[in-house]
Amino acid sequence: MRVLGIDPGLSRCGIGVVDGPRGKPTALRAGVIRTAAATPMPQRLLAIYDGVRALIAELRPDAVAIERVFFDRNVSTGIGVAQSAGMALLCAEQARLPVVEYTPTEIKALIAGDGAADKAAVGYMVTAQLRLTEVPRPADAADALAVALCHLNQAATPGSPGGMAPRLAAAVAAAGVGAQVVRRAGGAR
Amino acid sequence: MRVLGIDPGLSRCGIGVVDGPRGKPTALRAGVIRTAAATPMPQRLLAIYDGVRALIAELRPDAVAIERVFFDRNVSTGIGVAQSAGMALLCAEQARLPVVEYTPTEIKALIAGDGAADKAAVGYMVTAQLRLTEVPRPADAADALAVALCHLNQAATPGSPGGMAPRLAAAVAAAGVGAQVVRRAGGAR
Repeated sequence: MRVLGIDPGLSRCGIGVVDGPRGKPTALRAGVIRTAAATPMPQRLLAIYDGVRALIAELRPDAVAIERVFFDRNVSTGIGVAQSAGMALLCAEQARLPVVEYTPTEIKALIAGDGAADKAAVGYMVTAQLRLTEVPRPADAADALAVALCHLNQAATPGSPGGMAPRLAAAVAAAGVGAQVVRRAGGAR
Repeated sequence: MRVLGIDPGLSRCGIGVVDGPRGKPTALRAGVIRTAAATPMPQRLLAIYDGVRALIAELRPDAVAIERVFFDRNVSTGIGVAQSAGMALLCAEQARLPVVEYTPTEIKALIAGDGAADKAAVGYMVTAQLRLTEVPRPADAADALAVALCHLNQAATPGSPGGMAPRLAAAVAAAGVGAQVVRRAGGAR
């Protein structure tokens, strides 16, 4: 199974592609789509759209996993982050790929075993699981790999986003959080 | 000059197309793109994207005017509204159309002469200016016509989004508000 992970953002949209098998995943791509703050918003969104679309066309993932957008912290940048995420959701839908969203807490719990893990711990675990020689930079690229790994680790069988619930529930319960997975386009296809 | 107005929303994305001349505009289209709450988000976004894209291809507006998204009120629906707006921005950019955003206060000030005007007043003025026989329903369709009219009334010459500043500044000043227009993709093309 091959998963495209997205860490949405307007200045830096993290992208990471991992390929199964579950026990020995490899990283096919890690990076960011950058857009400049001085660039008009429609152009920034188009750049993200084109970037994600090209990546899907090239690497043909089986599913897209995306870090869920929240607005509890910085509302002023939240609109751009939401719209960046929207570009990824649109690209996934146009390619008829299932999309699964994970909250930041879920990603940390599933990757580092602790829903309150810091960025360094997530980066370390991503590096270890993918047997990389160094932690991917910038952090958005590592975060994109993390959400892709989350989904790869949860997915029961290639091509199916199902089967994650028990393991996820256990990890999230262990982390002492009440987060949930929203499976928006999975399974039904 | 022909302007596509967008009142972004996830359940109902208002769309309205008006055609100049400035003193005697006509409405070419008014309506909403509806998506069901039970539909997965990626499908909802694709429906809005496809709808706006088809409308641009059919009616070939010269510019897109969009109501600016804020998060001061309902954060829970804000992500969907922002992503809906993102679809419209993407469609405009793909069609290489200039995009101008107006705040709700600006729209009310420019259409009804009062930045605190209520929906009924905006609907009445849209109906009068476009010489319609009744107020467009739902309100999102009227709001989309309103933002399109805003831009048509402000635009100095066909094909150019320039020249709005003095009149807008006067209207906004008269309304006693400090709102501003963000001209994101206008002029430079």
